[in-house]
Amino acid sequence: MDEALLLRAARGETTPRPPVWIMRQAGRYLPEYRKIREMAGSFLDLCRTPRLAAEASLLPWRILDVDGVIVFSDILVVLDAMGLPISFDESGPRLARTVRRPEDLAGLRDADPPRRLAYVSEAVRILAEEVAGKVPVIGFAGAPFTLAAYAVSGGSPDLDEVRGILYAEPAFFGDLLSRIAEGVAGLLCEEIAAGASYVQLFDTWAGSLPPDAFVRFAAEPAASVIACVRRMGVPIAYFVRGAAPHIEAMASTGADVVAIDWTIAPADARARVGIRAALQGNLDPAVLLAPPGVVRERTRAMLEAFGGRRGYIANLGHGILASTPVESARAFVETVKGWEA
Amino acid sequence: MDEALLLRAARGETTPRPPVWIMRQAGRYLPEYRKIREMAGSFLDLCRTPRLAAEASLLPWRILDVDGVIVFSDILVVLDAMGLPISFDESGPRLARTVRRPEDLAGLRDADPPRRLAYVSEAVRILAEEVAGKVPVIGFAGAPFTLAAYAVSGGSPDLDEVRGILYAEPAFFGDLLSRIAEGVAGLLCEEIAAGASYVQLFDTWAGSLPPDAFVRFAAEPAASVIACVRRMGVPIAYFVRGAAPHIEAMASTGADVVAIDWTIAPADARARVGIRAALQGNLDPAVLLAPPGVVRERTRAMLEAFGGRRGYIANLGHGILASTPVESARAFVETVKGWEA
Repeated sequence: MDEALLLRAARGETTPRPPVWIMRQAGRYLPEYRKIREMAGSFLDLCRTPRLAAEASLLPWRILDVDGVIVFSDILVVLDAMGLPISFDESGPRLARTVRRPEDLAGLRDADPPRRLAYVSEAVRILAEEVAGKVPVIGFAGAPFTLAAYAVSGGSPDLDEVRGILYAEPAFFGDLLSRIAEGVAGLLCEEIAAGASYVQLFDTWAGSLPPDAFVRFAAEPAASVIACVRRMGVPIAYFVRGAAPHIEAMASTGADVVAIDWTIAPADARARVGIRAALQGNLDPAVLLAPPGVVRERTRAMLEAFGGRRGYIANLGHGILASTPVESARAFVETVKGWEA
Repeated sequence: MDEALLLRAARGETTPRPPVWIMRQAGRYLPEYRKIREMAGSFLDLCRTPRLAAEASLLPWRILDVDGVIVFSDILVVLDAMGLPISFDESGPRLARTVRRPEDLAGLRDADPPRRLAYVSEAVRILAEEVAGKVPVIGFAGAPFTLAAYAVSGGSPDLDEVRGILYAEPAFFGDLLSRIAEGVAGLLCEEIAAGASYVQLFDTWAGSLPPDAFVRFAAEPAASVIACVRRMGVPIAYFVRGAAPHIEAMASTGADVVAIDWTIAPADARARVGIRAALQGNLDPAVLLAPPGVVRERTRAMLEAFGGRRGYIANLGHGILASTPVESARAFVETVKGWEA
């Protein structure tokens, strides 16, 4: 079998058409997902039940025929494994405690992914069996800065407060990042060993940093994870929301794929990244709230703006919104698959 | 008397040192403000009582000796005057109704600033008398896109939803922007007539737009306001949070001053704006949560990065945080005032 489009594009090759997948593609916008979620009980129960997590992961492949299946999980599982138990209520995630001072670091343990995150790699393993090589399995993890932001805040981050601690206590923050980076790299390597052939590091909150702090507290810790993972021969994407000011630093991490949000123009991203990395993105998820005609028009405009079929993976610029009509997600995927440059 | 530093810098001149003021400088971090706020009753009562609003405006001049006094008010007063009554609770602002469909436009009236927003210009008038030319009085208004986002959401904007409506109904959104722009321009002109010698347009939420939508739905409506205001001979600053992807478009609005947040490097901003506009910003407000030594160090680094004393106004990259120690605000202002390039 030919190598999958997703992997070829990630390596910077020219593909007959761009591969396409959607961040948070196995999510609440799918009625079938909501059923699986009910069967599982809580969101965390679903993450921790590999058979059901794999089932949820497969839905967007079956329903939308995307070019990659990402394992159903959550970026916070690494913190949970490190001794910061997580829970979810209506207002979002909660951590049982925070890590805000040097002395709080002593309470952290190693994530030990082969043991404590075995449920994630088991879901990847089932998924890889199910897709039987027809499409790549995508693994993922939260990036060190973003996870540190949750650890400091104890839930949905107050980013002003997080940066305040980072400025006041840079050495502590650096230690926290190193501890987290180790767990993150370990998890990604386990996912790859279980069958993931593409992985993505999500740095959702790093775009809130000034450029110099981004280099030190987001890009450098991400680069250490990326260096670890690349030894396994699998391409890795680095996603940042609010990527525009940081795209050169993102490309310098060694990531194979620079994954961007919608606030940067594709041609600008291409010019600034050059041939250092492939690009992934970046349709505004809010476009999928408009009628399918608008979705098709703006998707085509995006494909043209990325300028061709070389080293490019179509995606949204952030996770698909829960209120998205499935028909709009389908219009997005079909427009990419039917596109001729 | 020599013309004020703030006005000279806004016109792109070289000043002996950069002028400095702070967005939201008359805010909750000042104990004296909290006292005035209690006397007034609600936040809106304070906005609508010119004598007290002027008193609040003067506090940062008396306490921190900033180089400009911005009138105490709120960006939402224009919507209130247009027939969308506002209120505030713990979770933020609420509008009595939303404007989400073409037919909702019929319910809007003209803001009629000389009559319905007389309380703002009256506060400016008192303020101008009090400072007696010793320091410029700064007027302000919310920019059209940001106010439209509140009008659509009926309170703190759900920006995904706002962009969804913008994509689905661009003509409606454009009409809403035109209606708002008229009220905004009218308010700024009233403020200038009452004695403001510098004005700022706050486009807090426009950074969430893709670059092409930013041009059409943020920069162009802002440019129409700016064109109106510039005829009065007073410099105008255009502030966007998340300015990095949009800075060329900001410079193209005709604003005298491009006011930026902390996610863009000063040298990058300078290179991209060139001599088209002066720059204002951009210390991360979270730096002021760190000890004064850190504040001084990062303020000096910012001043150096902006590269000199030409066409530059020191400020934070967004409003000062309520949890900021007054000593840190003082360290910021004093570092700018004592700086020698």
